[in-house]
Amino acid sequence: MNYKIRAARKKTAKILSLLCMCKVQIPPSPLLKLFKMYFPFSFFLFSELERDGFCQNPFFECLVAEVSDEHRSKDGHTVVGYGLYYYTYSTWKGRSVYLEDLYVMPEFRGNGIGKGLMCKVAKVKCVRLQLAVLDWNSPARDFYAAKGAQDLTDSEGWHFIRFDGLSLDNLVKDAPKD
Amino acid sequence: MNYKIRAARKKTAKILSLLCMCKVQIPPSPLLKLFKMYFPFSFFLFSELERDGFCQNPFFECLVAEVSDEHRSKDGHTVVGYGLYYYTYSTWKGRSVYLEDLYVMPEFRGNGIGKGLMCKVAKVKCVRLQLAVLDWNSPARDFYAAKGAQDLTDSEGWHFIRFDGLSLDNLVKDAPKD
Repeated sequence: MNYKIRAARKKTAKILSLLCMCKVQIPPSPLLKLFKMYFPFSFFLFSELERDGFCQNPFFECLVAEVSDEHRSKDGHTVVGYGLYYYTYSTWKGRSVYLEDLYVMPEFRGNGIGKGLMCKVAKVKCVRLQLAVLDWNSPARDFYAAKGAQDLTDSEGWHFIRFDGLSLDNLVKDAPKD
Repeated sequence: MNYKIRAARKKTAKILSLLCMCKVQIPPSPLLKLFKMYFPFSFFLFSELERDGFCQNPFFECLVAEVSDEHRSKDGHTVVGYGLYYYTYSTWKGRSVYLEDLYVMPEFRGNGIGKGLMCKVAKVKCVRLQLAVLDWNSPARDFYAAKGAQDLTDSEGWHFIRFDGLSLDNLVKDAPKD
């Protein structure tokens, strides 16, 4: 199947927000299924993405995969996947890129679109391409491993740590005064 | 002990590069000890950090902890710790901050400087503060846990994946033509 990869544009933000919602597989709960059924398009997410990604100094960059009109999805979309990334930095290695989301609609999988998106992101000038994957997501883990990626959690023991909500508020409260 | 936290400036890049080298504890090998003895200051690292962090659109931001002259380190430094961070993005949560490095010289530990740096970084307007830690680094893991952080690798099963060197080159080679 022919597809093209191009940078997301401001007018792509709507379909992008739809794809961002579709990609969420966790938890695979009836509640989420219901949520997706009744809110297939999140206006909140759309306006946030439009504001944050398509401004003077965007918080992220994004590539989308687009198929021709004749191959459009069963819901009528030609944008069928995306790779959303931003730059990070290693004090030992320099500029790196972090692939936050990589998603292809299920009906378009098996056509190399996911790999195409990832490879295009890798062309960004950087010394590393990093991402995160859940341990139960074997297809994704196998996909990255087959492409030669290292699992740094398995090989070196790296753990993700997060402060948010109350724990983040507490840090802010404890910050030394200027 | 009194200390101040302030933004790193261009002229701080030299001591910053020294601290970046000091923070590397892995592997705790004789080779690294020798390396640090003969190259206490890396000109390469210094010039990279100066270029990348103190330009028009810096790749990272950095806070340093500074003690008064009377408390300077045994090597004569008043900048005794740093927290280096950059912005990331969640398509569900928005702007986040990633604490890439948090380091305090061993002789200054136990004075709340590390916590002070982290709390100051947390004051950056964001919905999440994230970082990574190695599983053998119990003091750091305990420190974050005591502050209410979640270990997402333990609780949700997130793994770090990295492409670099040959695996990154291969991705670039495989990228679809424009």
